[in-house]
Amino acid sequence: MGVPTVYEQTERTTPSRYRDRTSYDRALVHAILDAGCVCHLGFVRDGAPVVLPTLYGRVGDRLYVHGSTGSRPLRAAGRAGEEGMPVCVTVTHLDGLVLARSAFHHSLNYRSVVVHGRALDVTDTAERSAALDALVDQAVPGRSADCRPPTGKELAATAVLRIDLAEVSAKVRCAGPGDEPEDLALPHWSGVVPVTRAYGEPVPADDLAPGIPVPAYLSAL
Amino acid sequence: MGVPTVYEQTERTTPSRYRDRTSYDRALVHAILDAGCVCHLGFVRDGAPVVLPTLYGRVGDRLYVHGSTGSRPLRAAGRAGEEGMPVCVTVTHLDGLVLARSAFHHSLNYRSVVVHGRALDVTDTAERSAALDALVDQAVPGRSADCRPPTGKELAATAVLRIDLAEVSAKVRCAGPGDEPEDLALPHWSGVVPVTRAYGEPVPADDLAPGIPVPAYLSAL
Repeated sequence: MGVPTVYEQTERTTPSRYRDRTSYDRALVHAILDAGCVCHLGFVRDGAPVVLPTLYGRVGDRLYVHGSTGSRPLRAAGRAGEEGMPVCVTVTHLDGLVLARSAFHHSLNYRSVVVHGRALDVTDTAERSAALDALVDQAVPGRSADCRPPTGKELAATAVLRIDLAEVSAKVRCAGPGDEPEDLALPHWSGVVPVTRAYGEPVPADDLAPGIPVPAYLSAL
Repeated sequence: MGVPTVYEQTERTTPSRYRDRTSYDRALVHAILDAGCVCHLGFVRDGAPVVLPTLYGRVGDRLYVHGSTGSRPLRAAGRAGEEGMPVCVTVTHLDGLVLARSAFHHSLNYRSVVVHGRALDVTDTAERSAALDALVDQAVPGRSADCRPPTGKELAATAVLRIDLAEVSAKVRCAGPGDEPEDLALPHWSGVVPVTRAYGEPVPADDLAPGIPVPAYLSAL
């Protein structure tokens, strides 16, 4: 039996709108996650939502986030124990500004993934190590093999949370403007302004020893 | 009496970590908000957090989001009435990948704003119109004056939510790697890879009439 190619659709992952933009395809979800490194982590504190940007790493069907053992969300997840803390993790890439003739049909091209689940405090040493490597490699693929690994003290100061990819959906809009037929003759420019993430020239640290070249994995960005 | 230059700090906007990166400066908050157009809107559904990416617009000390009157979060906000629906709105700009000699000190340069508040369904016609203009202009400054305004039917199909900027904080990291002194001699490259948002050449709609030039406000992006 192979790995299912789609995530199971649930009530929570069924949108009320734009169902044709929604997908449960596992490969698509992974591709969208792998194209980024910053997620927005949502959790509930005192009955109110909190949304914080944070680095993530994906290993198979698991997402990891990390932080100081002293930070509030990570402490809360620790207190939640084996049950885990209810979270929603969302990753979004803006791909274009969509200008229609009508204000109403202005839109954005984007790819996003929304993960509903529970964040579990990871205690297994090997899993924690692999997760921390994944977090570094999510931002810069290949980097975890080219830096000093964490010391015991650093590991002890770091909390790692796991969110299983199970209740997941992707949403993609990748199209031109959807103007009304009666608006096509209007004189307004209409189309898409592509938006991408651009990486600039690497800036060496002030105290970088001379003679250390920019590594190949950075040029690959 | 002028407008206060800082937002009042509260328990919710006091971070447990990195207080030196946190600011309540009103001008800084506005600048970070104005540099983007996609926020992550968090709310609570059935006790669990939900985080969705959506367009926003800022008018003074008010943020607006919109959507179909049929969408679940907007229906929920409508039901919440004058009390409003508890939300958290977060806007994040990734500015750089920070590579330290140690895995532990890897980081990101970023600017983010977190808004805690309540989303109120906007019913006033003039405020709704101004908010919808602001939403279009947030993505493309100047565009709302160069497209067909919403019809009554389109307005009726659109819900507009307002979140007052009151309980707000900004967080900024803009620095090189913070390596430990004993790691400085390690042979790993260390520094920052700048990340920016890049706009591509505007792509006209397939059905754009010939002779309509790319407007100046697009070249300004």
